[in-house]
Amino acid sequence: MNPPLIEALRQIVGPRHVITSADQTLDSFEIDWRGRYHGKALCVVLPASTTEVAEVVQVCLHHQTSIVTQGGNTGLVGGGVPDSTGSQVVLQLRRMNQILHLDSANSAMTVQAGCILQNLQLAAQQQGFLLPLSLAAEGSCTIGGNLACNAGGTQVIRYGNARDLCLGLEVVTAQGEVWEGLSALRKDNTGYDLKNLFIGSEGTLGIITAATLKLFPLPACKLTAWVALPDLLSAVALLQLARSHLAAGLTGFEVMNHFSLGLVQKHYPHLSLPLPLENEEAPWCVLLEQSDFQNEAHARQLLEHFMEHAFTQGLIKDAVIAQSIQQSDSLWHLRESIPLAQAAEGLNIKHDISLPISKIPAFVQSIEAVIQQNYPGVRIVNFGHLGDGNLHFNIQAAPSDDAKAFLMQNEASINELVYAAVKAHQGSISAEHGIGQLKVDELKKHKSAVALELMRRIKRSMDPLNVLNPGRVISL
Amino acid sequence: MNPPLIEALRQIVGPRHVITSADQTLDSFEIDWRGRYHGKALCVVLPASTTEVAEVVQVCLHHQTSIVTQGGNTGLVGGGVPDSTGSQVVLQLRRMNQILHLDSANSAMTVQAGCILQNLQLAAQQQGFLLPLSLAAEGSCTIGGNLACNAGGTQVIRYGNARDLCLGLEVVTAQGEVWEGLSALRKDNTGYDLKNLFIGSEGTLGIITAATLKLFPLPACKLTAWVALPDLLSAVALLQLARSHLAAGLTGFEVMNHFSLGLVQKHYPHLSLPLPLENEEAPWCVLLEQSDFQNEAHARQLLEHFMEHAFTQGLIKDAVIAQSIQQSDSLWHLRESIPLAQAAEGLNIKHDISLPISKIPAFVQSIEAVIQQNYPGVRIVNFGHLGDGNLHFNIQAAPSDDAKAFLMQNEASINELVYAAVKAHQGSISAEHGIGQLKVDELKKHKSAVALELMRRIKRSMDPLNVLNPGRVISL
Repeated sequence: MNPPLIEALRQIVGPRHVITSADQTLDSFEIDWRGRYHGKALCVVLPASTTEVAEVVQVCLHHQTSIVTQGGNTGLVGGGVPDSTGSQVVLQLRRMNQILHLDSANSAMTVQAGCILQNLQLAAQQQGFLLPLSLAAEGSCTIGGNLACNAGGTQVIRYGNARDLCLGLEVVTAQGEVWEGLSALRKDNTGYDLKNLFIGSEGTLGIITAATLKLFPLPACKLTAWVALPDLLSAVALLQLARSHLAAGLTGFEVMNHFSLGLVQKHYPHLSLPLPLENEEAPWCVLLEQSDFQNEAHARQLLEHFMEHAFTQGLIKDAVIAQSIQQSDSLWHLRESIPLAQAAEGLNIKHDISLPISKIPAFVQSIEAVIQQNYPGVRIVNFGHLGDGNLHFNIQAAPSDDAKAFLMQNEASINELVYAAVKAHQGSISAEHGIGQLKVDELKKHKSAVALELMRRIKRSMDPLNVLNPGRVISL
Repeated sequence: MNPPLIEALRQIVGPRHVITSADQTLDSFEIDWRGRYHGKALCVVLPASTTEVAEVVQVCLHHQTSIVTQGGNTGLVGGGVPDSTGSQVVLQLRRMNQILHLDSANSAMTVQAGCILQNLQLAAQQQGFLLPLSLAAEGSCTIGGNLACNAGGTQVIRYGNARDLCLGLEVVTAQGEVWEGLSALRKDNTGYDLKNLFIGSEGTLGIITAATLKLFPLPACKLTAWVALPDLLSAVALLQLARSHLAAGLTGFEVMNHFSLGLVQKHYPHLSLPLPLENEEAPWCVLLEQSDFQNEAHARQLLEHFMEHAFTQGLIKDAVIAQSIQQSDSLWHLRESIPLAQAAEGLNIKHDISLPISKIPAFVQSIEAVIQQNYPGVRIVNFGHLGDGNLHFNIQAAPSDDAKAFLMQNEASINELVYAAVKAHQGSISAEHGIGQLKVDELKKHKSAVALELMRRIKRSMDPLNVLNPGRVISL
């Protein structure tokens, strides 16, 4: 405990907005949503304004106390959970949830960091705009967390990652000052790119308090197709063909192997697959989404023309185009049920990796062979955003094995094999989830000494007292 | 002179590739292409490989000698020209001009920093791809310089600035080490965004030696329209309408006032304007470019439909759609002749500014009134990339005044007025040209103390000996 600090925090945000161990709700801020990381906080402080955030940082600096910033607490790498010392302050931004400005003529909106992503999507839509950031946690994640982690999601192929959607930021620095970088400009070459440095730094360089986001026109319609393919080489060729036919109209390109869809079928038998899994000629499926700005007839004509070409070239063996929004939603629902189905099947070893798209077939072929050789009988749940080179390549124990025991015993060695193959194919060990606490040690093995040293120099220069989320992303 | 250093450099790159004052060609590296900045170099060194660049940095560090990196020497802010001390080494990268790899299935190409932009555009095109970075200097600027300065250009509205087109970088650090960041990944959340920190740092944080660039499908056709508008409010509304009708098909949106087109007519009378300038109801023109991935008939139908709406809404008074590639080229040629025509008219005071698009009409109205009140009779050459909020807002002396004397006497005070208005409208004093040496002092006035301090911390941490382009962008 540190009564003077807690008293000072109460004075800043009001006594109701400092949660200590006297309060039963403290727990919920100390554990991530999956229950993987259990920390112990000194207290949770919930500021209502940027000024209050800055004052909190100043007071923590004065008391030499470090700060873990938390948004929706939906992260997958433990970056928003305090450590186990009970000495850290959790800075929870959910009270800062106002949309500050929507500027139609500039196609931009300015929002506080604690806004929930889905609320922003809806607010944009009500004004006739698309906010394209879209991911599974959108109902509870916050935009501040999305930017701090540079979230990806399902429309990256067309609209980019979170950083590509951000025009400006407001950030409280490790000195407790406010950087007023909340620009709404498309071009601004006045010095170093502070914005992109804060984005993706996972709360270790500064605290994002507000952001200006790019908006796009709403498409007139979306079509969704589900196709069956013989192999990943065909999937990569199909992606190229889709890019040339649909260009910017291609807004989604997801790949799934039959085993991952089989899990969906097993655990959610009420969901029906559009194409049978028994087709051994085509053990891969692709879910492809097309956005059109004219009308549905135009979209359908373009998509059918593209599919004809794909058939003619032998890239696809079978295909279905959704005939309604409901059908389209249920295709997406199948894709999104994979993570839940694999959880239902039992614990598994997860990888969020990316590769140059051209190298995906060779990577998968080589790593599958290595895994099967070393761990006969294990099942591979392979699915992901092929259009962005991002695979969720997960390993499930053999049916006869105890999943938990298998994970405890083999996770480290399987990670080693997978990450070695990733490295050999010039990939990344964290495509969209970030580093947090989960991959700090892994990062040291996979990033060059030069890169690590540059990161340390930056961290030390911007946060010399190591007060912001210490030990996360990069250890000093 | 510093004979041991020069001898060491000769040993690294070969005697023929170190140019000293004994060589008459030294001059050409000491002056920018417009002849505004005249420096004095110790020597120019032309390495052939990344290893040689790293060795050059190490040797310069040993001799406590600073380095100015130079690409095509086409910059507009003096960032690639040595200072006047005669003690700096100019690192000229033009020998590093190889395309290392074009990966069709990953839609990416990896190139050395000294490649000329136009050569890369052509190489991409030959493989069926578009490299969308496009700017006036493309025939001589290098991709390394484009990235170091985060170049903009004419297709930013659709494809973004140089930074948005870059997947990975190889950089020699201020320690003379090589950061192997030449990734070709669309998603990579493994730590701080070093890539974007180097991009736009104008050679002050590291030396870009190679880059991996995103490629896009080539459009099936491009259409160009030229329209006359009553005012800038209509231009902003037209942009919104164009975005909703053409979406990602809108690849160019340039605005020009009548005075700037009048200069083209005056100095290049053989170029004919598509619409008469005498129309006082419509003193603004917009050049709009549409790229289509289907075919010309489809493009024309979409564009005509959009133009009908624009007419109906009273946004445009007159319009011409180019009927051939030649006509389209000549419309673009008119736009690109404005800078030359204003140079022919005499020296002028230039501004490369950006604003939230929604604020452009109010900004222009207020600053024109202020300028005319303070400097009666001056002429305003206002044109730029309205789709990106980027104006080249330039002031030409009254016809009766001596242009050079006017500039000498009034540049500082006019800049003060313009930049104050930019600030009042949340704009930027450098949209796409950067800071270099031209705007270092101006930056101090227009950037917050917090931002400047963050920049200084970063510069000191990454280049503690201040060996890379010292005094440019940020003064310590």
